[in-house]
Amino acid sequence: MMKIVSYGIRQDEQPALKEWQAQHPEVQVQVESELLTPQSATKAKGADGVVTFQQAPYTREVLQALHDNGINKMSLRNVGTDNIDMTAAKELGFQITNVRVYSPNAIAEHAVWLMGRLLRREPEYTEKINNHDLRWAPEIGRELRMQTVGVIGTGHIGQVLIQILKGFGAKVVAYDPYQNAELAKEGLYVDQLDDLYKQADIITIHVPSTPENIHMINAQSLAQMKDHVIIINVARGDLIDTKALIAGLDAGKVAGAGLDVYENEVGVFNEDWHDQAFPDKQLEDLMNRKNVILTPHTAFYTETAVKNMVQISHNDNLKMIQGQQPDNPVQLG
Amino acid sequence: MMKIVSYGIRQDEQPALKEWQAQHPEVQVQVESELLTPQSATKAKGADGVVTFQQAPYTREVLQALHDNGINKMSLRNVGTDNIDMTAAKELGFQITNVRVYSPNAIAEHAVWLMGRLLRREPEYTEKINNHDLRWAPEIGRELRMQTVGVIGTGHIGQVLIQILKGFGAKVVAYDPYQNAELAKEGLYVDQLDDLYKQADIITIHVPSTPENIHMINAQSLAQMKDHVIIINVARGDLIDTKALIAGLDAGKVAGAGLDVYENEVGVFNEDWHDQAFPDKQLEDLMNRKNVILTPHTAFYTETAVKNMVQISHNDNLKMIQGQQPDNPVQLG
Repeated sequence: MMKIVSYGIRQDEQPALKEWQAQHPEVQVQVESELLTPQSATKAKGADGVVTFQQAPYTREVLQALHDNGINKMSLRNVGTDNIDMTAAKELGFQITNVRVYSPNAIAEHAVWLMGRLLRREPEYTEKINNHDLRWAPEIGRELRMQTVGVIGTGHIGQVLIQILKGFGAKVVAYDPYQNAELAKEGLYVDQLDDLYKQADIITIHVPSTPENIHMINAQSLAQMKDHVIIINVARGDLIDTKALIAGLDAGKVAGAGLDVYENEVGVFNEDWHDQAFPDKQLEDLMNRKNVILTPHTAFYTETAVKNMVQISHNDNLKMIQGQQPDNPVQLG
Repeated sequence: MMKIVSYGIRQDEQPALKEWQAQHPEVQVQVESELLTPQSATKAKGADGVVTFQQAPYTREVLQALHDNGINKMSLRNVGTDNIDMTAAKELGFQITNVRVYSPNAIAEHAVWLMGRLLRREPEYTEKINNHDLRWAPEIGRELRMQTVGVIGTGHIGQVLIQILKGFGAKVVAYDPYQNAELAKEGLYVDQLDDLYKQADIITIHVPSTPENIHMINAQSLAQMKDHVIIINVARGDLIDTKALIAGLDAGKVAGAGLDVYENEVGVFNEDWHDQAFPDKQLEDLMNRKNVILTPHTAFYTETAVKNMVQISHNDNLKMIQGQQPDNPVQLG
């Protein structure tokens, strides 16, 4: 019987994993709640592959420990591979897969929810209501259908987002150096980012964090935007120069920001700081503003996405074990 | 020069009124921040018509005072006319208009925002984040596109809502005794409310508060719904039997509720209770639940809606003054 050891399985992943196990009685899945470390790697002895999900690095030590226990097939339940020691993985003969697309809708919907909460001034109302102040004026809202939304990046996520925005009746302007033929036919693209900045009431970013994209939202680009622009970032934190964004908020140039990511989020997000000093003053400043909504990298976190992450990774691990080509192979270096 | 006295003009209405005045230099508009009362009615002496917006009753005394000051043309900036003494209005020869449709989108979008906040468990995250707990698990979210949404009532608001839901890719089932031909062609209708209750993950109500609709969501209808249903009400408070809803929440039958209206909201909503005892224990119980989102009748409250309410009412008042047929005449009794 084939055997897969699945590390760091969270409670919310268990239903999807149970479903997968029921569909694959030929595989024994050993569930480990702890993360993959040189120590826990010994638990994989005798298995055919491992499935993991962690933000901590996959060091040479971890990979060597797996190798020493006879494992060289590793499937990540997430997309990111930049924490893998690729040189070690190659030397040790690893085959690795990730999950490239788990739910563009999870991310696109989250971007729209952030827009809605800002347009309807939800943080202000929430505070009023918590204080038993049930007056509606003066926090008047805006309707999404009356806004021009600038969508930067029209890959999987940007395309889903545009469909949602069209349902609302919002005007969409899009920018992407690689244009989608359908969207181009609809005339949604502008040729220059500047044109998008000039027209958009709401700007939302859906591009990868490549060297040329880092800090694309900065003092210079903000200066080209309309007054009272709303900025949404559910992509990568370093796409925004946070200092410039804060200056824009202070100046009233930026009316609101919805952020699911943050430049310096590693080591801060997905941690509980309630009983210790908060480690990032700049982030705390953003979180305290009534026109900024921060979510701690939860855009992806839906039942559908988690199910896909669990099941696609186990499918690919099984394919590698059976000598088949996996759907999401990771190029090692 | 024609003259209109506009009572109870709020700060957020002033931009729209200024815009209307600029378009109508032939009319003098006298702005009064106070509401229309028998006393303030004297300020309308010499005017040709009045425009008002209030939740307080339009009594015989108020109408008589207007009449004594030579006014019998009154335009409401809102839709509701049930607070007018119709017998007195008729006897005193009044012509009255209201604003029947100001922005279906304001209401429909609000319903969708409530769905999004509940699906993504926003109140739980907001509390965690306020406490500096930035862990994402275990409050996993759901995607709107994966839900079946039951839309009860397919008038102006229901139709806009269905367009928005289709943009998300959600499955829509609709019920209305008077079916819209377009939606019927798409096969969205079920013939019985029971069928909608059986299928829907989210149920949202967009019907008037007629005698047969009052308490349509009650213990019996709740029992027919799917377990973990989400209920949205941005229509009228008395459409829901609140006690039955609370029992459903307690039993876990109802996973969440988004309420912009409440059975006993008159005298409670649009008031500030922060420094006095909260007057409604049942409402307070709802407000304290993490799976209930209450907004104090703010669904309508957008810049677009307020602009329409101000400008449509003044247009109609001017039409009556000029002896033309207004667009929104109110049938007196």
